[in-house]
Amino acid sequence: MDDFFFQIVFRLVNRFPWIGRIASRIPWLRRLISDIFVNWQAYATNPRPRPFSMASPYTTWQSLTDRTFTGRHLPEAEGDQNLPNLERVVNLWKRKEHKEIPSVDTSILFSFFAQWFTDSFLRTDFRDRRKNTSNHEIDLCQIYGLREEVTYRLRLKKDGKLKYQIIDGEMYPPFLFNVEETTQGNWVFASEEFEKLHPRFALDFVFNNVPEERLKRMFATGLEHGNSSIGYTIMNTIMLREHNRICDLLKETHSQWDDERLFQTARNVMIVLLIQVVLKDYVSRFTQFNFTLDPTPGMAEKQRWYRTNWISLEFNLLYRWHSMVPEHYLVGNNSYTLDEFRNNIPLVMHYGIGSLITAASTQKAGRIGLYNTHGFFFDPLPFGTENQSVMARTIEMGRQAKLRSFNDYREAFSMPRLRSFEELTSDAELQRELKELYHDRIDDLEWQVGIFAEDHDEGFSLGRLMVRMVGYDAFTHALTNPLVSTYVHNEATFSKIGQLVIEETNSLADIVQRNVKDSDKVVASFKTSTRPSVN
Amino acid sequence: MDDFFFQIVFRLVNRFPWIGRIASRIPWLRRLISDIFVNWQAYATNPRPRPFSMASPYTTWQSLTDRTFTGRHLPEAEGDQNLPNLERVVNLWKRKEHKEIPSVDTSILFSFFAQWFTDSFLRTDFRDRRKNTSNHEIDLCQIYGLREEVTYRLRLKKDGKLKYQIIDGEMYPPFLFNVEETTQGNWVFASEEFEKLHPRFALDFVFNNVPEERLKRMFATGLEHGNSSIGYTIMNTIMLREHNRICDLLKETHSQWDDERLFQTARNVMIVLLIQVVLKDYVSRFTQFNFTLDPTPGMAEKQRWYRTNWISLEFNLLYRWHSMVPEHYLVGNNSYTLDEFRNNIPLVMHYGIGSLITAASTQKAGRIGLYNTHGFFFDPLPFGTENQSVMARTIEMGRQAKLRSFNDYREAFSMPRLRSFEELTSDAELQRELKELYHDRIDDLEWQVGIFAEDHDEGFSLGRLMVRMVGYDAFTHALTNPLVSTYVHNEATFSKIGQLVIEETNSLADIVQRNVKDSDKVVASFKTSTRPSVN
Repeated sequence: MDDFFFQIVFRLVNRFPWIGRIASRIPWLRRLISDIFVNWQAYATNPRPRPFSMASPYTTWQSLTDRTFTGRHLPEAEGDQNLPNLERVVNLWKRKEHKEIPSVDTSILFSFFAQWFTDSFLRTDFRDRRKNTSNHEIDLCQIYGLREEVTYRLRLKKDGKLKYQIIDGEMYPPFLFNVEETTQGNWVFASEEFEKLHPRFALDFVFNNVPEERLKRMFATGLEHGNSSIGYTIMNTIMLREHNRICDLLKETHSQWDDERLFQTARNVMIVLLIQVVLKDYVSRFTQFNFTLDPTPGMAEKQRWYRTNWISLEFNLLYRWHSMVPEHYLVGNNSYTLDEFRNNIPLVMHYGIGSLITAASTQKAGRIGLYNTHGFFFDPLPFGTENQSVMARTIEMGRQAKLRSFNDYREAFSMPRLRSFEELTSDAELQRELKELYHDRIDDLEWQVGIFAEDHDEGFSLGRLMVRMVGYDAFTHALTNPLVSTYVHNEATFSKIGQLVIEETNSLADIVQRNVKDSDKVVASFKTSTRPSVN
Repeated sequence: MDDFFFQIVFRLVNRFPWIGRIASRIPWLRRLISDIFVNWQAYATNPRPRPFSMASPYTTWQSLTDRTFTGRHLPEAEGDQNLPNLERVVNLWKRKEHKEIPSVDTSILFSFFAQWFTDSFLRTDFRDRRKNTSNHEIDLCQIYGLREEVTYRLRLKKDGKLKYQIIDGEMYPPFLFNVEETTQGNWVFASEEFEKLHPRFALDFVFNNVPEERLKRMFATGLEHGNSSIGYTIMNTIMLREHNRICDLLKETHSQWDDERLFQTARNVMIVLLIQVVLKDYVSRFTQFNFTLDPTPGMAEKQRWYRTNWISLEFNLLYRWHSMVPEHYLVGNNSYTLDEFRNNIPLVMHYGIGSLITAASTQKAGRIGLYNTHGFFFDPLPFGTENQSVMARTIEMGRQAKLRSFNDYREAFSMPRLRSFEELTSDAELQRELKELYHDRIDDLEWQVGIFAEDHDEGFSLGRLMVRMVGYDAFTHALTNPLVSTYVHNEATFSKIGQLVIEETNSLADIVQRNVKDSDKVVASFKTSTRPSVN
């Protein structure tokens, strides 16, 4: 369908928010609109199999089949790309005088979820950045691990549950280390199983420079950097609690089931809960339309875009939404720096999960775009090539891959090429700076810069091309998950009680409410809220 | 579409063979009929993703994603299956007084191709028979190996070619061993690269009991049992020659290409040549219709059955077409036993590839069915559980997997359940024997027995359910290969000259003719022929 048609609709829905709300409440209309929207995005570019991957600059059997090499939507650019100095480009992301530009109504909780969620499948292999260590699926590896042997080490092996500990009457993941004996120089793992959880080089990397008091209280989680931020820890903890809660429910009804069956069934349910949250709550918040996305079951399988997933480099790079990170995190009357919100389990235990979720739901995240990234991401890192910063590494990664220009990607995603920087952004200063950097040649504009520089359409939280690209990759990822496919998504896979849990879950708030103390006082929302939600 | 409709059509085409021949010659009609036929087969059962695999008796994340566990179409049978004594069932396959029942017009060359072809993707992991070592794709791993490091060891690393040797002016794969120094007790590999080609336990298994004169002349090939039969060696040799021939062609046009690009492009072309032969020549010979299958390019990608492949246990077991193996192989005026046609490279070099292909094209293979398997497959093997025979292991494998009944599979593949053994087969003796074994309960009939016992429809070389099941798995396998997909199958992937080679290849004969001495005297045909074909 025509792009223009959608522009009109978006403007209307944005001006008259009741349209979105009402459409959301009529099931058949909600599904119809959802199906049209999903297909608009998912048909934006050629369906997989893609001819190219990072394995080689031309098509080879390996580039067609070996998913350890990251995919790519477009082949390498040919010839000289006339790219400006890297450092100057990186600086486009910088906040001016540490002043953050807030989003319209996106909460910090949304940014927590985004980081935690994408971290599970956007997994660059740091030993060879053309490759990845991803399973290419939404599989909740954050709590289950990437491989069966890791899963096994995280399992309690009783009643289907994951290992846990109780602190102040609430459930948390177990500690990775022996808290008493561990020092910065001498890690003593809590058990032999936990010692084998992650490769040592990966832990060396993520625990680098973490203060000892925080280090020794790291949780044992599915992924090596499962403690990297407060938000990550919150999400892991909530999901662990929900898994173990579902195990109890399953055992009540299926008292004859062994640990294995309880575990596997709870895991099936959990993965679908996550997909539900992603579609109905998270992706719906890419806009301010108050519309709840709810595609018709089985719709995806009839489409040509229904193809086994393969994470692309572009998906990996476009998702660097660091600008959502605020200058300070507010919890009640206290203000915390980014550093205090990183690798800090003691702080989580001090406040408890519920209070932190409420705080994250009431504070606005930064607007996704240029001129809006926290200084941390420009600090030289204590490792890697030339101690580059996070931002510099990101931009360099795209350049090493010889990504094609912004306009080439617009074309590949069924959008007209832009003819000027004025069409890209209404920000006069940004126009001026980009014109200078790219010698007023819009066709030379780098894709990474362009997707962050581009104006957001009314009602959207992302630039135009970013919306299309994230939409394509997100929908063809989430909706091709085997657990939501026609002959799998049934009572045999989830059990009756498991299906009921799935049906009752439409948002992250639903999962949170079931798993925090004093749940009536807890607000969990991807849209900033100032009052406790009534569920 | 209705089964009955197809029955009528098949009868007509079989009675009036000119219908098939004429339909084959009109391109649009050939494609239309091909598309209808392919979809009839490929829609016979539920599309993937399948809820089950050999990983677990219920649906788990592993059963949905881990392809090292072999897939399965139907879940395990529940309760007692009332199965008759294993040995008695196995004996149903035995030839009576070593008298073979010939096929209508299927050549020995067809049986050579079938073994060689299926061996590349039907790969049971003998350390755990629930698992497989398959890439699940048609990838010519017979000459390229299953993994990139094996491929690398087989490459000449010059001009894109595979390693080879010239004997009597003709090209062959290189020897695996140092011929002079190797003895049965002391294997000396030809090079360090070849020593690492296959795991030692696999070679111990396949070279078990091979006479020394044959052993030392084994070829280095992509798969561990690449020398197991004369037919296998013939196919490997022809494909090696074609690969290296294509490299020469590519280099003529693309003199600036390095070894890597020449190799990868030749490999792309080769895999598609194999798929062409499979569709247009091999699968077409499952019938006697003289119709050349030729589906419309891009047709598959529009279908709901277009799903990433996952080899099923049923596909693996139904393809045990041992009954094609004759009592004697005829080459000119000489007659050879099966043993002489196994692991015998010296014999290949004695006759040369061309003469052996002609011989294999003029002799009929055995009819696929019961009462028609060579004694070799009933001999106790010198390894494994209780030294079981090949046939006993096959039947036991199905029983261990608790495969559902023949009638359950008919139902799952959109065919009516049979009500009596009379409906199954018109062979009175077989009826009597099966009735006794299964206490006259057709619903108890084992699937493995049923698919081989069932009457062939007029014009078909296989039983009715076997046709449907092999059709489903074969088409959804071959037509989902990434190299024949819309955005990959183009000049960029194959080069202009590569595309030309693909267009000029419609049968195995085409490839053979390009790669044997005195090609005008060589006949290569899946249908038995008594005169040299004029190409």
